[in-house]
Amino acid sequence: MLNRLFLLIILAIPVLSLAQIERVEPPNWWVGMKTNTLQLLVKNPDIGNATPSITYKGVRILQVHQATSKNYLFIDLEISKDAHPGTFEIVFQSNTGENLTYNYQLLEREVPAENLMGFSSQDAIYLITPDRFANGDYSNDIDISLQEKTINRNDDYARHGGDIQGIINHIDYISDLGFTAVWPSPLLTNNMKSASYHGYAITDFYQVDPRFGTLANYKSLAASLRKKDMKLIMDMVANHCGSNHWWMQDFPFKDWVNQQSNFENKRPINNSNHRRTTNQDPYASKRDKAEFQEGWFVEAMPDLNQRNPFMATYLIQNSIWWIETLHLGGIRQDTYPYPDKDFMADWAGAIITEYPNFSIVGEEWSVNPLLIAYWQTGHKNKDGYESNLKSTMDFAMQKNIVDALNEPEKWDQGLVKIYEGLANDFSYTKPRDIMVFMDNHDMSRIFTQLKQDVTKTQMALGYLLTLPRIPQVYYGTEILMSDHEKPGDHGLIRTDFPGGWADDSINAFTGEGLYKDQKNMQSFLKSILNYRKSSKAITEGKTVHFAPFLGTYFMFRTFKDETVVVILNKNETPITIDLKRYLEIGLTGKTLTNIVSGNQVEWLESMTFNTSGITILSTKK
Amino acid sequence: MLNRLFLLIILAIPVLSLAQIERVEPPNWWVGMKTNTLQLLVKNPDIGNATPSITYKGVRILQVHQATSKNYLFIDLEISKDAHPGTFEIVFQSNTGENLTYNYQLLEREVPAENLMGFSSQDAIYLITPDRFANGDYSNDIDISLQEKTINRNDDYARHGGDIQGIINHIDYISDLGFTAVWPSPLLTNNMKSASYHGYAITDFYQVDPRFGTLANYKSLAASLRKKDMKLIMDMVANHCGSNHWWMQDFPFKDWVNQQSNFENKRPINNSNHRRTTNQDPYASKRDKAEFQEGWFVEAMPDLNQRNPFMATYLIQNSIWWIETLHLGGIRQDTYPYPDKDFMADWAGAIITEYPNFSIVGEEWSVNPLLIAYWQTGHKNKDGYESNLKSTMDFAMQKNIVDALNEPEKWDQGLVKIYEGLANDFSYTKPRDIMVFMDNHDMSRIFTQLKQDVTKTQMALGYLLTLPRIPQVYYGTEILMSDHEKPGDHGLIRTDFPGGWADDSINAFTGEGLYKDQKNMQSFLKSILNYRKSSKAITEGKTVHFAPFLGTYFMFRTFKDETVVVILNKNETPITIDLKRYLEIGLTGKTLTNIVSGNQVEWLESMTFNTSGITILSTKK
Repeated sequence: MLNRLFLLIILAIPVLSLAQIERVEPPNWWVGMKTNTLQLLVKNPDIGNATPSITYKGVRILQVHQATSKNYLFIDLEISKDAHPGTFEIVFQSNTGENLTYNYQLLEREVPAENLMGFSSQDAIYLITPDRFANGDYSNDIDISLQEKTINRNDDYARHGGDIQGIINHIDYISDLGFTAVWPSPLLTNNMKSASYHGYAITDFYQVDPRFGTLANYKSLAASLRKKDMKLIMDMVANHCGSNHWWMQDFPFKDWVNQQSNFENKRPINNSNHRRTTNQDPYASKRDKAEFQEGWFVEAMPDLNQRNPFMATYLIQNSIWWIETLHLGGIRQDTYPYPDKDFMADWAGAIITEYPNFSIVGEEWSVNPLLIAYWQTGHKNKDGYESNLKSTMDFAMQKNIVDALNEPEKWDQGLVKIYEGLANDFSYTKPRDIMVFMDNHDMSRIFTQLKQDVTKTQMALGYLLTLPRIPQVYYGTEILMSDHEKPGDHGLIRTDFPGGWADDSINAFTGEGLYKDQKNMQSFLKSILNYRKSSKAITEGKTVHFAPFLGTYFMFRTFKDETVVVILNKNETPITIDLKRYLEIGLTGKTLTNIVSGNQVEWLESMTFNTSGITILSTKK
Repeated sequence: MLNRLFLLIILAIPVLSLAQIERVEPPNWWVGMKTNTLQLLVKNPDIGNATPSITYKGVRILQVHQATSKNYLFIDLEISKDAHPGTFEIVFQSNTGENLTYNYQLLEREVPAENLMGFSSQDAIYLITPDRFANGDYSNDIDISLQEKTINRNDDYARHGGDIQGIINHIDYISDLGFTAVWPSPLLTNNMKSASYHGYAITDFYQVDPRFGTLANYKSLAASLRKKDMKLIMDMVANHCGSNHWWMQDFPFKDWVNQQSNFENKRPINNSNHRRTTNQDPYASKRDKAEFQEGWFVEAMPDLNQRNPFMATYLIQNSIWWIETLHLGGIRQDTYPYPDKDFMADWAGAIITEYPNFSIVGEEWSVNPLLIAYWQTGHKNKDGYESNLKSTMDFAMQKNIVDALNEPEKWDQGLVKIYEGLANDFSYTKPRDIMVFMDNHDMSRIFTQLKQDVTKTQMALGYLLTLPRIPQVYYGTEILMSDHEKPGDHGLIRTDFPGGWADDSINAFTGEGLYKDQKNMQSFLKSILNYRKSSKAITEGKTVHFAPFLGTYFMFRTFKDETVVVILNKNETPITIDLKRYLEIGLTGKTLTNIVSGNQVEWLESMTFNTSGITILSTKK
């Protein structure tokens, strides 16, 4: 196994000119970084006994750390401001007198760090499960050097062949829909025996999964998006690795990965108790905290110990390496509450220090607004915790929208769920920096959650896209993809996008074979997303909304002379709403344009709605 | 009507020696208050044209305010530090040359303000609906000068005759149960046509409802409780009055009461929209805010305008008058989010300034922990709001406990609701100052909420009484009072306490006629409440709890060498729990006493529970 990995590494990292050192990570670095230190992880048989030296202007070794395993060495470098780009030798003198040499490359930075703009409420994010979106390169579907060697589109948990080239091929489609950012779930190697398609069991933090493509492909994806003024968001996992990660055979330190073996209980021995509230709970027992933090996410995902300072540095440098290599437009960090939370603050802090305009969104799956607030930077937490995290995820609003549409209208049910849910923004540091979504790769499709009701799905998505938030839409939502045959089934949620494979009879990219509702939803989203791109009212505007009234809910977004009116109407039969109620918005006598249909209406005394649905009007023509 | 009221006032306020002025409020004041100003409301026909004067050492008129109605005058007094107790004349010189005189009394304060200790987590509060608890004086059951002239114990919404003397008669019962504070719902005059029994439609803020007794009775209740080292909590209403309040015939100012007449909508014209989140919602429309704040609570309860500075002062002085007159041990303020919130902060601030050790609890009926946190003093609200309010109410925890016991055990259901609910304490300024309860006069009885399950009711109450909170129990809970015949019916919730009336066949005070489960519940609560009185572990201790495990939940409360263990077990069949899990608490080898049964157990390797229920153990003997 190690041999195979070794081969791969040589193929993947061409700067390793003398193949005498198995692994040096990060594989390269840059001059002119704000942080002028770098810690190299060196792995080679018995390297722990060697003494490294470097002779290169502006680069010096600050400290060398031996690990528990003799096959590792950690080298702290200082890269001073006067260091120039170039390659320098690291000479490892062993105690047997034999020297090993490694050529390490310092690159010039291609863009100023300040230019890496993170996603914001001006963006709309398209989330993709790459294995299931489009197969752009059939030659990479199977890699016999990896454990899962098959592809089977009839098996929801097998690889289907989607890849980076598939995304590149369809950037125009995504861009035309009106999205401005793409978040593919992880693209790094998951060399696992089965179900490796999802990408969250990373076995090499510096390697693109060969079945998704190469580093060159990944760079090409980034560049192609940039050309369209779109952002690439990388999905990262600091909490765990795949159980077949290369270091699982030989840990640098005993505590490199958390082990729960000292806890005797009746749960599967290694697993986390998943009690995420232990992060905040002032009464949490030590036991629960340890079970949460040290337990493995699942059996196949060993829990990294970020309290080991070498691991912490490894993960921080890894993230910075990818940002700098790909010129990312953001990071989505998986399972945010699971790693050590002080580490996560350090990690996010290090990134924001290096890239002040960057964005990170952390995933905490909780409908408790206290937790959504807790993790966002600037929140005055009683325990003093400062996350440095710009964006959290609004699982609470997701549920509120679904409840608002599924529940019958009552005093405390239905539309009031979004009215009162949005009111919770009073407690968030910056609501506009929170990401909101109707579904994602771990949840039932919104069309399924709303019981295959097209109108309600439009209401949900229209509202989502006009909220003071960063909206995220999961691929396939635009063609009403569903999992109603087996709701919540992960494999089914991540269904192949029709047209992504050459032999698909339906092609959603071209519209060929789509039924009417699907085409309507595509064009519905396209209208709103494209309007949204230049709408300061939606992306930066002031929000005013009104308590639900007679089965309707009105939200107004305003920026200077642009006002966008969002009306949700749950009445199936015609209803006339007296517009005096909304007098304070100052729309009386104005002509508004329906941003979906293009129709114009006058804002006069009343408005009649013939059937349920969403109406989005704008004062802009 | 005015004549009748006039008569009553003369009877109720004996200091009004010269019956020439209809009404001066507050009816008396004290020397030596921290705030050295006092604003008198004077009401008399045409008094607005009179010029008042006072000649009394240390007292001077600062300003005289005419009102819109000529029948009112507001006089600002300064009462300096050298003013002595005594009576002074206020001479009103009218423009016709005729003088009126009023003798106003300044009393000496009976106890230092610092000695008025408010309720705290050391207390357990017994909530009483006075009309339904005990009839201690049959002579006051009907007062023909008031509008509702009947009593009918067969009608849930009629008066039943309970009164202050009834509470006084049974203080020993309440004290023996182990309660240390009594909160009767409002005892002031509700001169309303019907359903006046509940007390929340006050028609005179300075008068005890004659059907409940006299001011002397109220003072006697306070004194009797004090003798037992118990606290009297007064239920106050700053938001509204009863629609038959005396000032409704003749407002001092046009804006004395809020009117919503300028809003045209299809709801009952005067009523609040009850959208309480408009207090916090950054996006709330002006319209919703006004409808909420200016609308009446219900048609029979006009909304006081606390933004009128004379009304604001009136309400603040009224509260201080009652605190000083009765030496209160706390205030429960009704419908806290409904009055102007800046006024509420001023009101609470004025009280805490005068009585630094006092306690106020405000009622916001919301299960949203963001709101529970928002209203508590010291919370760092984004909008800068500082409430000055010591205690909020934990409706969230109430629901969590009910859900925890009613739901089957699942990953995200059952006991985890209290585990995760209590974790929210991370966001509260001082969780121990929050009041928690299983029910109150507006909610289904807890026995009904828990589907008449005695064991679950014990679990709920046992947990409630050991939480880091101020627990409140509604009268009759100790004998499993229920409303299951018509769940949620207010009249039924407030059922007569058996034994409170001379002809009752069952007497819960003596135990006569109670069935076994009722007696058990009385003694169960008695054991815990009396243990609680001297338990620093419960009232001040550190809390550690563990995630639910195999249908059980363990919470530990510790202060120095006292540890109280609270175990909730939902398994109906025997289960053995390995105690290694709880090793960090350090109980191994210790002998613990069950505070309910008195049985002793050793804390060794494991503990077996034969059936579901609550176990409360203590290291104290």
